[in-house]
Amino acid sequence: MIDPALHLATKPTDMIIPAKGQTASSVGSPRIEKWLGEQLFKAIGPAPIRFVLRGETEISPTASSPIGTVFIHDNQTLVKMMADPEMAFGEAYADGRVHVNGDLVRMLEAVYQSMGAAPERRYARLTSKWMNWWQANTLRGSRSNVHRHYDLGNDFYKLWLDPQMVYTCAYFASPQATLEEAQEAKLDYICRKLELRSGETVVEAGCGWGALALYMAQHYGVKVKAFNISHEQILFARRAATERGLSDRVEFIEDDYRNIPEGFDTFVSIGMLEHVDPRRFADFGEIIHRAVGDTGRGLLHFVGRSHTGDFSRWIRKRIFPGAHAPSLAEAMNILQPRHYAVLDVENLRPHYARTLEHWLDRYDASSAKVVEMYGPWFQRAWRLYLAGSIAGFRTGTLQLFQITFAGSKRQTASWTRAPLYAQAGR
Amino acid sequence: MIDPALHLATKPTDMIIPAKGQTASSVGSPRIEKWLGEQLFKAIGPAPIRFVLRGETEISPTASSPIGTVFIHDNQTLVKMMADPEMAFGEAYADGRVHVNGDLVRMLEAVYQSMGAAPERRYARLTSKWMNWWQANTLRGSRSNVHRHYDLGNDFYKLWLDPQMVYTCAYFASPQATLEEAQEAKLDYICRKLELRSGETVVEAGCGWGALALYMAQHYGVKVKAFNISHEQILFARRAATERGLSDRVEFIEDDYRNIPEGFDTFVSIGMLEHVDPRRFADFGEIIHRAVGDTGRGLLHFVGRSHTGDFSRWIRKRIFPGAHAPSLAEAMNILQPRHYAVLDVENLRPHYARTLEHWLDRYDASSAKVVEMYGPWFQRAWRLYLAGSIAGFRTGTLQLFQITFAGSKRQTASWTRAPLYAQAGR
Repeated sequence: MIDPALHLATKPTDMIIPAKGQTASSVGSPRIEKWLGEQLFKAIGPAPIRFVLRGETEISPTASSPIGTVFIHDNQTLVKMMADPEMAFGEAYADGRVHVNGDLVRMLEAVYQSMGAAPERRYARLTSKWMNWWQANTLRGSRSNVHRHYDLGNDFYKLWLDPQMVYTCAYFASPQATLEEAQEAKLDYICRKLELRSGETVVEAGCGWGALALYMAQHYGVKVKAFNISHEQILFARRAATERGLSDRVEFIEDDYRNIPEGFDTFVSIGMLEHVDPRRFADFGEIIHRAVGDTGRGLLHFVGRSHTGDFSRWIRKRIFPGAHAPSLAEAMNILQPRHYAVLDVENLRPHYARTLEHWLDRYDASSAKVVEMYGPWFQRAWRLYLAGSIAGFRTGTLQLFQITFAGSKRQTASWTRAPLYAQAGR
Repeated sequence: MIDPALHLATKPTDMIIPAKGQTASSVGSPRIEKWLGEQLFKAIGPAPIRFVLRGETEISPTASSPIGTVFIHDNQTLVKMMADPEMAFGEAYADGRVHVNGDLVRMLEAVYQSMGAAPERRYARLTSKWMNWWQANTLRGSRSNVHRHYDLGNDFYKLWLDPQMVYTCAYFASPQATLEEAQEAKLDYICRKLELRSGETVVEAGCGWGALALYMAQHYGVKVKAFNISHEQILFARRAATERGLSDRVEFIEDDYRNIPEGFDTFVSIGMLEHVDPRRFADFGEIIHRAVGDTGRGLLHFVGRSHTGDFSRWIRKRIFPGAHAPSLAEAMNILQPRHYAVLDVENLRPHYARTLEHWLDRYDASSAKVVEMYGPWFQRAWRLYLAGSIAGFRTGTLQLFQITFAGSKRQTASWTRAPLYAQAGR
């Protein structure tokens, strides 16, 4: 993978062989540079990354040979990266104040691994809380947050999503499947996990561009009401419903999920939970309960984490305002108050890494177009978001959970999970 | 299903047709009896059960025709059942102070359903807390608790378990599978979920009579250290290892799981978590982490619940001292502090109902033998425990969770779950 910003990078003037026993070695004014290097590696851990400062000073890891180089163009950026590496790197990368020579995804992977389970710093915790507050997913806050991301324009997403515009983790029956096959397989997998029967009613909370709602109606004969507050997405979805002759069976409603009424057999939400305040998960559970009661069932599909903690601050600041990746413990706050029985949890993390690899390839192939549409800052910021997400799913700082659940009065239909895998190739 | 205690039951003297609009109707001294009936149905909800008091007064549900009759032989038992239905019924059933005419499992199911999600009463909450305290699973407490249940004598368990003595939920590829087939299928299913490879090391926390440890070593070529504090079970397991020529690959250690050392690839615990204090789940997570670190993986299999709450007090008092059925939220307290990634959660609840049906059939077939071994009180108490467990898994007051997890530095081997279901009939 070639970084499109690479042509801007300054070549390092010197190459040094790191001395043993040092955290990092450097050239230039020896003492200060050594200290700077140590501080940087203290902040990001012993990652195999070489840093080149102002085109002249090189700071290299000692423990391992570097897999890539980060060029930092000014001292201020370096100092910020020491204090708050994730946020400062994101900002500097988007601004063009750092450049990367090497495979960005692999380098981010290495940093995520080396940062490991280090406790969050106090400054990060404080700014994270502040961000939670000003990006709060109130009825109004959600509209603004969703508008900022999903209303960027359908033409932008068409550049790198599949034609059905499925903007969530696909399901690759094999890693060689195409993105189109894998997205369709995902839609079908969800329908089978939900054991949909013709004539049933489904409500979808956060329907994106409508692919799942349309698929369910077309292939499983159910009636769907799909909620979404992204105006652009709703317009696209309604057009698709008309074109495919499904308008009588799928209703796309431009409204908040909190206004979902009662009276459905099944509740489904794919990639929407990340936009719900985790302190309000019990309320979300009440919405599910109002929708499907104790006899219904549902499926939640979301980017999660293996522990409870705030989502990347840079991603929230620049890409997904108000977003949160819940742990399973948090997700249980949705389901347990009403005694919903968890039937199945599947972690599809490798599938999201693969999905994002497809997206990033397509995105890079369209990078000139993206620059034309939104400028170079935007092109770089979104590239970092996609690359960082791949790294997150590969290393496990991010997980992808699919939870199937049933109301306390519903008897499960399927005896084992074997039927899910009976249809080869689907 | 015929209740073996039935022959003691007094026939009701009168049959009445319930009057409409009443919660319950009764014959006898009309006012008091009506009040008694109302109180009883208030305590258990509108269950379709007929009660016959002192062989003469009948209290019937009005909303539905009864599916069975409970004969209550004295006023004191009736009053206790009003105040604390679950505990009082358990005690009275074991004592022979009530008798049941009808299918005990179905009747218990009906009561569990009618009691629904009613909040726990204050008295129950207090006595439950008290019980948590005096049955605490300290190192010493666990020995006493485990001894009381698992050291009843292997001859007793042989009466109703399969020959391999697997005393946990089986896996029925189809509901028609035999118990023997289903237990073997479960052992294999766990090995495949863990993706065991020849030469790896496994530690088992709470190994019962050793069936899984032996199966893993024999069929997957792994080395197993299996911990258990039940003396009777360890003796049985060691004998089986010798007989099957597996002593060099399986070591049965009579020690507490808290003393599991480091240095394993895989951690497995089947039906043991129910004996761990949920307030100590983080410590349990540390034991797992010591055993397999960040690169290992594991599987937890346990009787759980769809919400967090104490286990049946009667079961704890008479059958399983110190037992607790954790919710998934509680279970996450084991895995999340060390960032273990949940890969898979499967709810095998219908399989445990089926397993228990097999056990109860065999138990009932051996009831004379059980009476001979431990007396009629014991025979009735254990019958209620088995029947109540079937009802619990059928209605969903109990769940059976299998959680597969991986350390934060382990990459998962399997791309999808399809290989788990590729070998038909296993």
